Amino acid sequence: MESNNIQTKDETAADLFISSAQLLEHWQGHRRLTRRLIEAFPEDKFFTFSVGGMRPFAALVMEMAQMAAPGMNGIVTRKWAYGDDLFDPANPMPASKGDFLDLWDEITEKINLSWQQIPSGRFQERDTAFGQYEGPIYSTLLYFIDNEIHHRGQGYVYLRALGIDPPPFWER
Amino acid sequence: MESNNIQTKDETAADLFISSAQLLEHWQGHRRLTRRLIEAFPEDKFFTFSVGGMRPFAALVMEMAQMAAPGMNGIVTRKWAYGDDLFDPANPMPASKGDFLDLWDEITEKINLSWQQIPSGRFQERDTAFGQYEGPIYSTLLYFIDNEIHHRGQGYVYLRALGIDPPPFWER
Repeated sequence: MESNNIQTKDETAADLFISSAQLLEHWQGHRRLTRRLIEAFPEDKFFTFSVGGMRPFAALVMEMAQMAAPGMNGIVTRKWAYGDDLFDPANPMPASKGDFLDLWDEITEKINLSWQQIPSGRFQERDTAFGQYEGPIYSTLLYFIDNEIHHRGQGYVYLRALGIDPPPFWER
Repeated sequence: MESNNIQTKDETAADLFISSAQLLEHWQGHRRLTRRLIEAFPEDKFFTFSVGGMRPFAALVMEMAQMAAPGMNGIVTRKWAYGDDLFDPANPMPASKGDFLDLWDEITEKINLSWQQIPSGRFQERDTAFGQYEGPIYSTLLYFIDNEIHHRGQGYVYLRALGIDPPPFWER
């Protein structure tokens, strides 16, 4: 160990798990896979098909979008609201798969731009996301990603139930 | 900023995303939820029920177990093998839900103990997990977690299709 290494509360720089830049790329890799899943659905089934009384994949994707874009606003500005310049929270659902893909791409770009504006040390701050969910910002952000993986996994079942081979999970 | 702060390639200590200890707790929180999902399945359906020709939840849980325990061995020792002291890779599947839960708990304990033995700087090393999957160790470990979330999300659909309310996703 070099003598100029410093220790934070429970971590040395050498024990870094993942950097901010690596986490962004990890998330965007997941988002590329989710985009491929949207593409794999037939237009009508994307809005109507489900299993076990659950929501159709369009509604699950909308939930991901409504976490990601307003969530990045909250992480950057410390002000939380469900609305966003990309969509009106009262009437957010795009009408076609193509419009969903366009919205997805706008959010991808927004995340990349917002990431550069995250205040230093912000990931380790505690906050109350959307006025409701209390915790450190790293856990808020992991929640956005984990929730996307969780619901996308459900989209895999929908595709299999429709007889469609989904894109491989490991391709990002 | 204090003058003794050091910069790693793309990260200052102040920009830490998540520490090693926080990541362990994050994973174990997910593992507690997966355990509740195993418990929620009726004994027979756990081994037999599926949707769209997919594997039953027991097989998905076994995949998680076979990544997590041998995976921790590889992360700690840099030696990768599919077997483990907890199960024989040729015949790994426990015969009952109770035996699955016991195995799950043993792996929980093993992860906690192994975590303390992860070499300093290991998360940022590149390696070839199980002789096949090349990348930095943080991405290997996130793959274990993400794969668990992905397949557990599929278990949620199975439970809904069985008319069973699954445990809430946000409870860890």
